[in-house]
Amino acid sequence: MTTIESLSRALPADIIITDPDVMERYLHDDAEWAPFEPALAVIRPRSTDQVLAAVTWCIDNRVAVVPRGSGTGLSGGANSLAGSLVISLDAMDRVIDVDPVERTARVQPGVINEHLRTRVAEDGLWYPPDPASAPWSSIGGNVATNAGGLCCVKYGVTGEYVISLEMVTGTGKLVRLGRRTTKDVAGYDLRGLVVGSEGTLGVITEITVRLLPLPPVGTAIVGYFDSLVAAGQGVANVTAAGVIPSALELVDKYCLKAVDDWKNMGLSADAEAILLAATDAPGAAGVEEARTIVEAFEAAGATFAAVSENDEEADAFFAARRLAYPALERLGPVLTEDICVARSKVPEVLARIQQIAQSHDTVIAQIAHAGDGNLHPLLVTPPGDDEARQRAQAAFEEIIAVALEFGGTVSGEHGIGLLKRDGLAAELSPDVIDMHVAVKRALDPHGIMNPGKVFESRPATTSQAASEQL
Amino acid sequence: MTTIESLSRALPADIIITDPDVMERYLHDDAEWAPFEPALAVIRPRSTDQVLAAVTWCIDNRVAVVPRGSGTGLSGGANSLAGSLVISLDAMDRVIDVDPVERTARVQPGVINEHLRTRVAEDGLWYPPDPASAPWSSIGGNVATNAGGLCCVKYGVTGEYVISLEMVTGTGKLVRLGRRTTKDVAGYDLRGLVVGSEGTLGVITEITVRLLPLPPVGTAIVGYFDSLVAAGQGVANVTAAGVIPSALELVDKYCLKAVDDWKNMGLSADAEAILLAATDAPGAAGVEEARTIVEAFEAAGATFAAVSENDEEADAFFAARRLAYPALERLGPVLTEDICVARSKVPEVLARIQQIAQSHDTVIAQIAHAGDGNLHPLLVTPPGDDEARQRAQAAFEEIIAVALEFGGTVSGEHGIGLLKRDGLAAELSPDVIDMHVAVKRALDPHGIMNPGKVFESRPATTSQAASEQL
Repeated sequence: MTTIESLSRALPADIIITDPDVMERYLHDDAEWAPFEPALAVIRPRSTDQVLAAVTWCIDNRVAVVPRGSGTGLSGGANSLAGSLVISLDAMDRVIDVDPVERTARVQPGVINEHLRTRVAEDGLWYPPDPASAPWSSIGGNVATNAGGLCCVKYGVTGEYVISLEMVTGTGKLVRLGRRTTKDVAGYDLRGLVVGSEGTLGVITEITVRLLPLPPVGTAIVGYFDSLVAAGQGVANVTAAGVIPSALELVDKYCLKAVDDWKNMGLSADAEAILLAATDAPGAAGVEEARTIVEAFEAAGATFAAVSENDEEADAFFAARRLAYPALERLGPVLTEDICVARSKVPEVLARIQQIAQSHDTVIAQIAHAGDGNLHPLLVTPPGDDEARQRAQAAFEEIIAVALEFGGTVSGEHGIGLLKRDGLAAELSPDVIDMHVAVKRALDPHGIMNPGKVFESRPATTSQAASEQL
Repeated sequence: MTTIESLSRALPADIIITDPDVMERYLHDDAEWAPFEPALAVIRPRSTDQVLAAVTWCIDNRVAVVPRGSGTGLSGGANSLAGSLVISLDAMDRVIDVDPVERTARVQPGVINEHLRTRVAEDGLWYPPDPASAPWSSIGGNVATNAGGLCCVKYGVTGEYVISLEMVTGTGKLVRLGRRTTKDVAGYDLRGLVVGSEGTLGVITEITVRLLPLPPVGTAIVGYFDSLVAAGQGVANVTAAGVIPSALELVDKYCLKAVDDWKNMGLSADAEAILLAATDAPGAAGVEEARTIVEAFEAAGATFAAVSENDEEADAFFAARRLAYPALERLGPVLTEDICVARSKVPEVLARIQQIAQSHDTVIAQIAHAGDGNLHPLLVTPPGDDEARQRAQAAFEEIIAVALEFGGTVSGEHGIGLLKRDGLAAELSPDVIDMHVAVKRALDPHGIMNPGKVFESRPATTSQAASEQL
């Protein structure tokens, strides 16, 4: 019996994809130039039982599992490995229930972020985490990468909203991890360990998130700056003023133009960079915060800074921020950075990135969750230009080195995947990498869960695996 | 060379305590009736290097390590094991630095919670986590138990404020875990794994916490109720109204009287239970929230509910809440529960606890972080009455069973330690307990870190330990 025949006996035929043309779109995420290899098959399970059967089959046949959500990742975390079984959770896309009293929602992993937000808004509730990919990315993928977003500066990242999750482990067990109440200290935070683990510890099959009451309608503040560094100083000033805005985004001229060329939104920023801030503090407090932010922008030398009197204008700017990445992708391959540094270092690091763009003759557009110090330099290359690509890759590595030089991290919210394994190894000490390897081996003794992602895992030897088998 | 002689060569003599009379207070925490055994010695290190030397010595000599903060724990987590080395971090009590721009503080583990709060207030900053033990408990202990407090209903638990920590592992490595920036997804959240792990994964030697701007002065709301169940309904009503107060505490008549008899604070609550709420929403929003809370109390049948016009009165009630535990301890041994249930279940669970008090003929005073669903029934027994103690222990187990029956947890914020290991085993599935054992074995292959706390750990066999040695 061939391996595929054996798989076909373990699972319903209609969830298995083996046609190479149909499989192709499931073999990689959105990371430019991250390698991927042909899979044995792709499956699109419709139930937890099917995921469990698939993982059990993979353990028995020593086939690697590559879990994926909707494939909007930017680090190669969901890229297929040779001979692996790709488990796409996109067909498990139901909001199972919403509890307006406890303010929780239970969802399948394939639910699209924005679908969840829309659904819970019907009950006056809010799911804060809002990656720019919210219209396309899945909650399961958001959890696997601990996704951030615009709201993080005030409301935190995905992991802060995950109460519990259900997962099929590397030993083929279906487990429920996390809290059942608003707080607990009942054992290790294995829920938190899985959040951001990029599929290396198991396949998430259900997620319970906590929700907040819908916030008041916010006020937007826009600032124009004639240099990126001045805009960076605006960010540092807002932080120093003790204000926590509900968003604080930076968009440079290059990004605004790319969006405008695509969508004709009538954006006319006569500036090198703009800062987009928002406050959702209620009533007079919001007015006061908005005023403080305007002053912080002006003190940084803004050529124009004001509360946006016009909701449409503010909406257009925030929409442009969200569309920057796809707009640039239209111009050619885009390599996306995701470093994060202390907020006070933002001006200096933005300047260093500009120098790197010059010295490597590479177009680097800049967007940033600036209020978090999370920068997304976007390295744009002309299609088919191999030399430009090599220059961009060198610039990419140098930006990572700058992040580490400034005490920052190589990934604020996109994850390590394949593209930043070297960066992670440089960021963490060898002893901490060893702890990762030990934990992975403990929970995935066969080494079948997305192996080689995030860090070089060394599967346990067969005898160890047997003795460690849970 | 005896073991003690060998220890004396590894560490300075003046940090080693072997006199049984002096050691005694370091051998247990505040948990009533949790067993503890004679230690080999107690050490009070003054530096990370000394902790590292001590752990290395323990690995070489296969001596168990029992880390402790200031010993205010309520589950026996810091209780000494026979022949163990107790490492008391109380002498490492410095606030190393406070960064007002990044809003962080770096502290040694022995810093007392309230000292940190006072120190950062000088910079207009706030460390939110506020266990009732804040005047006496240490940040290291708070982190080890992921301590909660009054603020959690709005501001979350200790773990949400821990950015990074430095730890000596069970393999004798000094590692730094956690973020360097406001957010990251750089590898597994080992920081979060250590938070709440009750010393079973290593000895924490330094902690970096994030801080918030000091919140506006709050408004207090007091409600009087003629039954615990009505007060519980007040809590459920506040939640249902979509308000997130900055505190929502329940104190019963028994606790108020115990505090008043001790401190003569002139508390005169003509009620079976009071609810203490606070809002720190700014300006008009705060006024509105306070009004909503009063209405929620009234709708639950409060005999009196009002915004406290008198700061002294409000302060006295909140002080009484914090003093309830020591006040009751004056009356006899107190066994403290720490269950947490969904907020909507609070009325029903409070009623069940009252039934348990009757059926076991046990005095059960009630305080609760009610807004979190985190209940602290306090089982008070007359000193020296062995039968009363047995009845109280039976009631304790039955309350745990009720928490699980209602889908809650056995520990909201105190930890599992020794007293709740059976409860944890009942709460988590055997597969999840197996994951705990696997993770502990991976990170502590010699099984020397506070073994037997939280769950029954099975150390790796010698050959496994050797092959797994990091």
